[in-house]
Amino acid sequence: MKHLLKITAFICCLLAPTYDVNAQRKKNDYSEKNTSIFPRGQRVPANNFTGKAWVQQLILPDSAFNIPVGNVTFEAGARTYWHSHPGGQALLALDGVGYYQEKGKEIQVLRKGDTIKCPPNTPHWHGASPETGFTQIAITPNTSSGRVNWLQPVTDQEYSSFRK
Amino acid sequence: MKHLLKITAFICCLLAPTYDVNAQRKKNDYSEKNTSIFPRGQRVPANNFTGKAWVQQLILPDSAFNIPVGNVTFEAGARTYWHSHPGGQALLALDGVGYYQEKGKEIQVLRKGDTIKCPPNTPHWHGASPETGFTQIAITPNTSSGRVNWLQPVTDQEYSSFRK
Repeated sequence: MKHLLKITAFICCLLAPTYDVNAQRKKNDYSEKNTSIFPRGQRVPANNFTGKAWVQQLILPDSAFNIPVGNVTFEAGARTYWHSHPGGQALLALDGVGYYQEKGKEIQVLRKGDTIKCPPNTPHWHGASPETGFTQIAITPNTSSGRVNWLQPVTDQEYSSFRK
Repeated sequence: MKHLLKITAFICCLLAPTYDVNAQRKKNDYSEKNTSIFPRGQRVPANNFTGKAWVQQLILPDSAFNIPVGNVTFEAGARTYWHSHPGGQALLALDGVGYYQEKGKEIQVLRKGDTIKCPPNTPHWHGASPETGFTQIAITPNTSSGRVNWLQPVTDQEYSSFRK
């Protein structure tokens, strides 16, 4: 019995370093605190988003460089309303699992390292997957026709249309 | 003696999960393989860089969205030549420790989460610190006057002028 205890303790010591005690904590805290490269920033206004999302402006535009860049964090289930950009938009997925959909097309899943180039004046939406939050960089030029035209909310039926 | 062995083994089990076996490995492998969000991509041409650097194009420009976005990785000590951008440039620091300098100003240190907005036609350079590699996103609009004007190399004297 004593030998069995010692052998068990020894095996435990060998295996323990491979167990990341932070992994589960990080997953659970996704929507609670910043776990990404950039600060989570401020809650976005509720009138153009469903669920909780945060934005941190990384590059403020001016007349010489009129391309705002922001870090956007969505909690699981959160998404933008349908919208379009007169100057188009680039998205860079940094963390979590996201959804992106252009009108008339199927939902695309976005994971860390994925990128999207959304053409000008193309209705689309983006956000987190139902189970996991999502963090992205959004590069959205200002133009003489504006920067974003907001449309209707993404319905639960549209959001749940993803074919796994 | 048997009790001492069991107590030692038990304490070992408690402490082991807090030791991240990957931390040192990640640090050592910085310049050897991709440890960042985006692929490391291809080696940049040697004629405009000092030391080893890699670029992965994330967003290819077109007539509708004429803003190339790239992920650039510098090994420790590597840097661009002096250069300027007719449309300016935004830099987002993702990993490691970087240097950024505009002509006539002091070197700035860039760490994960730092951002730079470089004005149009402003001579500058960027790269890694001497001891640690650096990974950045570069957002560099194409303009009717081009995208980048390359200048002279950053000398060792200029590179080592950072005041700690």
